[in-house]
Amino acid sequence: MKKFLNNVDHMLAESLTGFATAHANLVEVQFEPTFVKRKQKAQNKVAVISGGGSGHEPLHAGYVGKGMLDAACPGQVFTSPTPDQMLAAAEAVHADKGVLFIVKNYAGDVMNFEMAAEMLSFEHATIYTSDDCAVVNSTYTTGRRGVAGTVIVEKCVGSLAETGANLEACKVLGEKINLRTSSIGAALTSCTVPAAGRPTFDISDSDIEMGVGIHGEPGRRREAMREADAIVNDMVAAIVHDIEAKQLPLKGEILLLVNGLGATPLMELYLIYNTAAKLLKEKGFTVARSLVGNYITAIDMAGASISVCLLDDEIKQHWDSPVHTAGLRWGA
Amino acid sequence: MKKFLNNVDHMLAESLTGFATAHANLVEVQFEPTFVKRKQKAQNKVAVISGGGSGHEPLHAGYVGKGMLDAACPGQVFTSPTPDQMLAAAEAVHADKGVLFIVKNYAGDVMNFEMAAEMLSFEHATIYTSDDCAVVNSTYTTGRRGVAGTVIVEKCVGSLAETGANLEACKVLGEKINLRTSSIGAALTSCTVPAAGRPTFDISDSDIEMGVGIHGEPGRRREAMREADAIVNDMVAAIVHDIEAKQLPLKGEILLLVNGLGATPLMELYLIYNTAAKLLKEKGFTVARSLVGNYITAIDMAGASISVCLLDDEIKQHWDSPVHTAGLRWGA
Repeated sequence: MKKFLNNVDHMLAESLTGFATAHANLVEVQFEPTFVKRKQKAQNKVAVISGGGSGHEPLHAGYVGKGMLDAACPGQVFTSPTPDQMLAAAEAVHADKGVLFIVKNYAGDVMNFEMAAEMLSFEHATIYTSDDCAVVNSTYTTGRRGVAGTVIVEKCVGSLAETGANLEACKVLGEKINLRTSSIGAALTSCTVPAAGRPTFDISDSDIEMGVGIHGEPGRRREAMREADAIVNDMVAAIVHDIEAKQLPLKGEILLLVNGLGATPLMELYLIYNTAAKLLKEKGFTVARSLVGNYITAIDMAGASISVCLLDDEIKQHWDSPVHTAGLRWGA
Repeated sequence: MKKFLNNVDHMLAESLTGFATAHANLVEVQFEPTFVKRKQKAQNKVAVISGGGSGHEPLHAGYVGKGMLDAACPGQVFTSPTPDQMLAAAEAVHADKGVLFIVKNYAGDVMNFEMAAEMLSFEHATIYTSDDCAVVNSTYTTGRRGVAGTVIVEKCVGSLAETGANLEACKVLGEKINLRTSSIGAALTSCTVPAAGRPTFDISDSDIEMGVGIHGEPGRRREAMREADAIVNDMVAAIVHDIEAKQLPLKGEILLLVNGLGATPLMELYLIYNTAAKLLKEKGFTVARSLVGNYITAIDMAGASISVCLLDDEIKQHWDSPVHTAGLRWGA
């Protein structure tokens, strides 16, 4: 394992301290328990809080700021945060309109956010994201995994919360977006968890993992490496099949998100985007919004995921609204 | 070699088409000769054009847009663009106040931009960036290499040009920033040029290349992998030594840019930032502005560079001004 690190046990704290220092105008980090919150506490709105294991940066701390999250609770790498983190974050950012948790559907995250929710003394609700259409049930998951669609949920729900909308409305929007978003990933290499010191899985130079999870969980199948167009074709087909299975329309405006898993260069991500956009147009969709880059990573995995969110006017409005975070910023 | 690609010969065109499609509200790409320009042509300002070999994304096409570049000329991966590209770009974006080329100091780029400049029928000037303090003269360079400081030059000169400033003023600002910026990189792995199909250099699991170039050029020395703090300490020491050698003040406000070379996760970049910021404060500097992420990459190299730009009010003003590009965006 070759990484810029001093001591595995201090890595998260050092990185979070660097993050909070680099973005001191935006966020503050607190330790014991650990959470990141906006520097300027928002007033009179639903407090939107997310969290999960670290190693997916910029998710989630990178999405704390005006127009998106009020706080994020980072666990150790690929490890759920503990309920005391969510409780401390909720106490810190609660602003009299309740707390909304956005939780990727992994057993540990679900359990710990549930425990935190039960202990909350004020109004609360939880959105579980499950946009990964690769597999049902996985190494750490009952049901589908929450992956890159979570970024879209956090952006749009954050936007709606900013308008003063109530808890129920925020939850409804988040669940709508989750339903209308399908994602799938493909890995060319494994990631390496620092504390493990070795790759999470073995993969030969001539294979890829189709449908990989963001922690290196197995996907649909190990298959031969092929040209990008063939891989992207299969990924888009899986997404289109998922949209059909959900009985959603195979037409209309979409947000196309091509996400890098950590070690895949932007040049390749745009190449993937190019093919995916063409295929989706051929299927009858209109690519109305796009996002290409590393938005939810699997540490240092070479690979990419494709997400399609079926837009409507409400989602589009909240996607377009100003956001000012370390990881996503526009109109501000 | 394991990459998302179809055909090495078409990779750049496919990627640029994807880029231009994803950012169709911002840019347009033209082929034969190849360049990327703003969708909305700017009027009555110096036209700022950069370019160079591809593989450093988001540089340079990712910096085309209001507040930064008017056009970018991407060559093949790690290969200079040809003069006809710069000529076509200049003809397309020239807006009656002359053309300013921003060129990283590599022999091929220098030669081809010079040839283009000689053929231009209107007023023009060129800024050569040479912020890399690792080595003087290198595989592809006479003098120092231009690296991550180029992003700062492009941002600030782009901002000044937007105010209607003349060609000379833009050139003076760019050269001031280049002088006041020192950078150094360190590689944990090589990059792999798609057309070569194999890593540019061999490096063992226990070594790093200190002072590596953004094309995998040799740095100062091959040295043993150590903890991050020790590596960052040496990098900051090299930068501080360079500032001293240039007889610039070892105090005052700085912009600290920690740049990923492609495959190093954000978590590690923030850890590097944390240590670098601490060390630079101890030396007497005030970290007034920060940028952390992949801004000028070496394809898929695991590694990072640190850049320090000594700020003054003028540089700070132009750094802070609105920018709307695919790769850098704020205030817009």
